[in-house]
Amino acid sequence: MNPLDKSKEERTTPRALRGSPSAYAAAGVDIDAADRLVGRIKELVRSAGRPEVLAGVGPFAGLFRLGQYREPVLVASTDSVGTKVKLAALLGRYDTVGVDIVNHCVNDILTAGAEPLFFLDYLASSDLGEQEKVTVVRGLVSACRAVGCAVIGGETADLPDLYAPADFDLVGFIVGVVERDRIIDGSGIEEGDVLLGLPSSGLHTNGYSLVRQVFGVGKGGDAAVERAALDRNYPGLGVTLGEALLVPHRCYYQELRPILGHIKGIAHITQGGLPGNVARIIPDGLAARFDRGSWRVPPIFGLIQETGKISDDEMYRVFNMGLGMVLVCSEEGASAVQQALREAKAVGRVTPPKGEDRVLLEPPSLAEGRPSVST
Amino acid sequence: MNPLDKSKEERTTPRALRGSPSAYAAAGVDIDAADRLVGRIKELVRSAGRPEVLAGVGPFAGLFRLGQYREPVLVASTDSVGTKVKLAALLGRYDTVGVDIVNHCVNDILTAGAEPLFFLDYLASSDLGEQEKVTVVRGLVSACRAVGCAVIGGETADLPDLYAPADFDLVGFIVGVVERDRIIDGSGIEEGDVLLGLPSSGLHTNGYSLVRQVFGVGKGGDAAVERAALDRNYPGLGVTLGEALLVPHRCYYQELRPILGHIKGIAHITQGGLPGNVARIIPDGLAARFDRGSWRVPPIFGLIQETGKISDDEMYRVFNMGLGMVLVCSEEGASAVQQALREAKAVGRVTPPKGEDRVLLEPPSLAEGRPSVST
Repeated sequence: MNPLDKSKEERTTPRALRGSPSAYAAAGVDIDAADRLVGRIKELVRSAGRPEVLAGVGPFAGLFRLGQYREPVLVASTDSVGTKVKLAALLGRYDTVGVDIVNHCVNDILTAGAEPLFFLDYLASSDLGEQEKVTVVRGLVSACRAVGCAVIGGETADLPDLYAPADFDLVGFIVGVVERDRIIDGSGIEEGDVLLGLPSSGLHTNGYSLVRQVFGVGKGGDAAVERAALDRNYPGLGVTLGEALLVPHRCYYQELRPILGHIKGIAHITQGGLPGNVARIIPDGLAARFDRGSWRVPPIFGLIQETGKISDDEMYRVFNMGLGMVLVCSEEGASAVQQALREAKAVGRVTPPKGEDRVLLEPPSLAEGRPSVST
Repeated sequence: MNPLDKSKEERTTPRALRGSPSAYAAAGVDIDAADRLVGRIKELVRSAGRPEVLAGVGPFAGLFRLGQYREPVLVASTDSVGTKVKLAALLGRYDTVGVDIVNHCVNDILTAGAEPLFFLDYLASSDLGEQEKVTVVRGLVSACRAVGCAVIGGETADLPDLYAPADFDLVGFIVGVVERDRIIDGSGIEEGDVLLGLPSSGLHTNGYSLVRQVFGVGKGGDAAVERAALDRNYPGLGVTLGEALLVPHRCYYQELRPILGHIKGIAHITQGGLPGNVARIIPDGLAARFDRGSWRVPPIFGLIQETGKISDDEMYRVFNMGLGMVLVCSEEGASAVQQALREAKAVGRVTPPKGEDRVLLEPPSLAEGRPSVST
């Protein structure tokens, strides 16, 4: 069933069934409860609308009338929050993960220069409560509203035996649009271009399985012990470990929208870090050389590295290390971007490649005092 | 990471990392293995393409150039296979669930009259093997090819501690298109219209938590015992219980595509059964009256009902009971549809409502000898 894409004001339930003992409910799927949830979610979702959404039609799907474009290219992406949901569940914080998934998806299609049009979510659990589900949806609705994206559908799945009690998974699906001649694809990138880095807000949505391993949280141990580990304060962090880890994935759409014309290529720094993601937009025969001293790596990454005794190389491959987006611009484009967006930092250059590596992190090893595993 | 939407022929991995001991891999996320998987999946996905797919751009998202339409309305839906995946995992059958999820999604947008354009999948597990993942994707690619739908993205997520060993979840996202004046929305439905039923292939993707409860399978018990329960033969079934339960969700797109102009409303019979789903397309002030004797309920449903001692009402609310799609047509429309599609059976009529029920199943109780719980 698809709670978000119902157009009827009231689902009709055969009267004989109302309040009847249900074998399905006993098996873990309560259709009446699902119906109640639909009503609450519908209210929320209405607030993330757009004029193009056709309401009152399509009870099995969301309908979105595409506006006027010369040569529209649809840009779509799907992703999940990863095991960041384990930490959210452990701390009983359901308001942030919806923001995470929307912002992750918006950033993914923004790399092609696309404007977000509509979003659908998939929220699956064994026994997540109605209030928790509504809180998750409220988070994603607010993040969609912030970028003018409509929520036109979704699925709340009760899947007993597939998810452990309290666990859930959250998946997002987004569609945006870009005029064909405005697609950002990195093809114009050339030697000497500037790499601009935009600060991340934290880990965003990657590396959480490693983090959970390092701090022994969300590993199925005693919940009170795991919670205590997350409630711990570390020098320099300013907040508890749990708070630092749950900071939502930052969205870059509103900042970049007015200056997309100055940008040749955009890499969203997710799994794979700078090496894995910047490599995806650098044309053959070129490399991206990052000057590692040019931006500040937030303390949470140092804490993870020291606690887990993780090599520099692996840290940069798993985490964003403080840069959530990397833009590639000409010298002039970079000036224009930096004028509009003061936080955009020059963090490197496009250079000839060195060996087979398309992304070079220099100097190759970081300042002394940091644990470093030679490989 | 998004294995299906990479445009680079080779992901670039910093040389120093190749073969290095990885804390992330030890934590259950092996980026090198993910890279290998990308290569295999890319091959498969290429075979489910369309001329509108822009290849070689958009490494973080899929790009699809929309063709020429007068007033295009995008139709989108998301769903999962539900806990049918538990049975697939138990039996080690990974080739059918991909077909399930694509066909479920295609049918959902078909209810609005939409042609499928592109699909993205989300496949999450803790430790599903590379071969099993590829087999799942092969299934969904083949189902997409069968309806001319492109696969333009997807996510294969390794989420240790969120899924039990061998378990996985599979989610689909689809976008289709329909001209605005061709939208099927049930608004023209009137008294006297004919209800046509199209046979389902089995349970499709609903009711599996109840089925698993009834037969004690996929409940975390001894795998050999649970497998033996699925390998059992029952009179009249013709195949083992497991085979009957894993029959893929049927797709109705190719059959209905040429005759959509004759159809006023389409209900996809998923969770909620005939009462829940047909109610979603019947206008206020009308009801859909089904003549329960007019179609054959396949033996698998009788077996579930008898084994689980489930009431008629609940059976019809949880399962499709042999009808995968219900079409609403005028008398003339119904003739045209039946001429083109012999298996379309007249199963009822649109009538004035009776009390507050929008869907009437008549006679109210089935033939004697069937277990029936009065409510």
